[in-house]
Amino acid sequence: MGEFELIRQYFLPLAQLPGSGAVIVGPGDDCAIQRVPPGQDLVFSIDTLVEGVHFPLNYRPDFLAWRALAVAASDLAAMGADPDCFTLALTLPEASESWLRQFAHGLGRAASQFGLSLAGGDTTRGPLTLSVQVHGLVEQGGALLRSGARAGDLIVASGTLGDAGAALDYLSAVDEHQLGNDEQFLLERYHHPIPRLKLGAALRSRATAVIDISDGLLADLGHILDASGVGASIETANIPLSAALRRVKQQQALNYALHSGDDYELCATIPGSVWKETPQWLKRELTVIGVIESASGLRIDGTATEPGPEPAGFDHFRSSV
Amino acid sequence: MGEFELIRQYFLPLAQLPGSGAVIVGPGDDCAIQRVPPGQDLVFSIDTLVEGVHFPLNYRPDFLAWRALAVAASDLAAMGADPDCFTLALTLPEASESWLRQFAHGLGRAASQFGLSLAGGDTTRGPLTLSVQVHGLVEQGGALLRSGARAGDLIVASGTLGDAGAALDYLSAVDEHQLGNDEQFLLERYHHPIPRLKLGAALRSRATAVIDISDGLLADLGHILDASGVGASIETANIPLSAALRRVKQQQALNYALHSGDDYELCATIPGSVWKETPQWLKRELTVIGVIESASGLRIDGTATEPGPEPAGFDHFRSSV
Repeated sequence: MGEFELIRQYFLPLAQLPGSGAVIVGPGDDCAIQRVPPGQDLVFSIDTLVEGVHFPLNYRPDFLAWRALAVAASDLAAMGADPDCFTLALTLPEASESWLRQFAHGLGRAASQFGLSLAGGDTTRGPLTLSVQVHGLVEQGGALLRSGARAGDLIVASGTLGDAGAALDYLSAVDEHQLGNDEQFLLERYHHPIPRLKLGAALRSRATAVIDISDGLLADLGHILDASGVGASIETANIPLSAALRRVKQQQALNYALHSGDDYELCATIPGSVWKETPQWLKRELTVIGVIESASGLRIDGTATEPGPEPAGFDHFRSSV
Repeated sequence: MGEFELIRQYFLPLAQLPGSGAVIVGPGDDCAIQRVPPGQDLVFSIDTLVEGVHFPLNYRPDFLAWRALAVAASDLAAMGADPDCFTLALTLPEASESWLRQFAHGLGRAASQFGLSLAGGDTTRGPLTLSVQVHGLVEQGGALLRSGARAGDLIVASGTLGDAGAALDYLSAVDEHQLGNDEQFLLERYHHPIPRLKLGAALRSRATAVIDISDGLLADLGHILDASGVGASIETANIPLSAALRRVKQQQALNYALHSGDDYELCATIPGSVWKETPQWLKRELTVIGVIESASGLRIDGTATEPGPEPAGFDHFRSSV
């Protein structure tokens, strides 16, 4: 079987996943066609992962596929958009059937879990690189931007931070099963980030600004502050850390939480009055870590600081324009 | 100035180009937002170019940018869609200011000429690779697919075929200005393909099937035949060849025209009754090269043939899913 046939065989079923029905022409023509329902906006973002830069050499293809789709879908979560479909530009050095089968398996699992059907793509020969563009839908004017934070808003973060960043130390383990439970937990956080799509949707009409934490909490909160023209204070004692990260990294745990973006959690700002009315289930997903202030700049435990450099990791040259 | 600043400085102006106004949030947030006008469909396609595979090493960055956008926009032309915006996933080994400036210059020229504004993107470190996703708009149900060709339809091709493919021989010329006029003409066809956007729009409600010639006439006509469940006969004496290609390549001219896709012309099928009523200006852009038949398979000058292998060139591993 030729490479093109293999690709069609493994990828085309991903176009049949139940979606919103907005894709009316999927893979196979010159373009795909999406019919955006009346009253809704199309929300879209493209993200690239390069072997050796954003993920290790010889990374498991099913994990890679999951990660690529999760990273892109996380941007939809940060807009409060409902996921719809995606395109995949896959460049790979050779199309081995075993690699493609595993990759398609991981992509199918992620696509199914995130609610994204494959609308189209391009497969080319070259160094292993993936670009995924995700498409979501949101009520017109309802998307969550970075620019709406106002003085007095509470700053919240979802889940726990720093886990996936700390996992980079264990990525080269020959046998992950010989690692302890804590290390395996951290690695799972790296291998299978879960875009906070339901959380993002729940933040619609509640949050004034949202961003997904892809560059690290400080850097990404800094993007909200810049876009909104405000400052902030955060309390490190309130940063949500997993028990595993505390045990494994001890002194460095906070550093990972502040500077690592591989968890793909959300950071949002919410007016205090809205927070009081927020349902308990949603509050349990979020931790208040600080407050927006009119004075520019970021204060950590009362001390002025810079957003600071990104940590050395698998994502050190990245810019969204 | 840092790399991110350079990228913002050179790329962000491309978000300000006059477009349809459908992009309501451009670069700078987690996602871009496009508001598809009522009664229209979103038409989109992603294409990847890899250095050394789809274009030569050390290719001029302004030519590269033009080519990347043209290749993607050509898919919009093939759907009869009006261009709207694009995203750019750019992976590059280093962000030299001079390279970025030239690249942005070429991208801006192409974006302006094709009517595409920059909606968003991602810039990453790695081997030089570009993925461009273009977005177009078309009246609901009005997009031109590959699947509508019917027995009796005329097969037409735009412009002249084979020029850009023949130019591959001259890509390594140390000084292009020392080449003859014919060779320079062929090279220009390779460096600056012009997506047939206006032609595609004019084919709406006229053509029964359209494809852009990116894999070569025979291969791409084969895609129409497959999608439509029909066969065809073509006459090689009618294949449009430029005078330059005839002079330079003589015996091989037809071979380039049949197998090379780098010109990004269109191949369409049009019912004879519609062709009769087609305005002269549009007829002048097109050449009738054959006819669709109910018997499956492709006959060239009366002899049954296979679509055949793609030529060795800068695009030998490519699959759209």
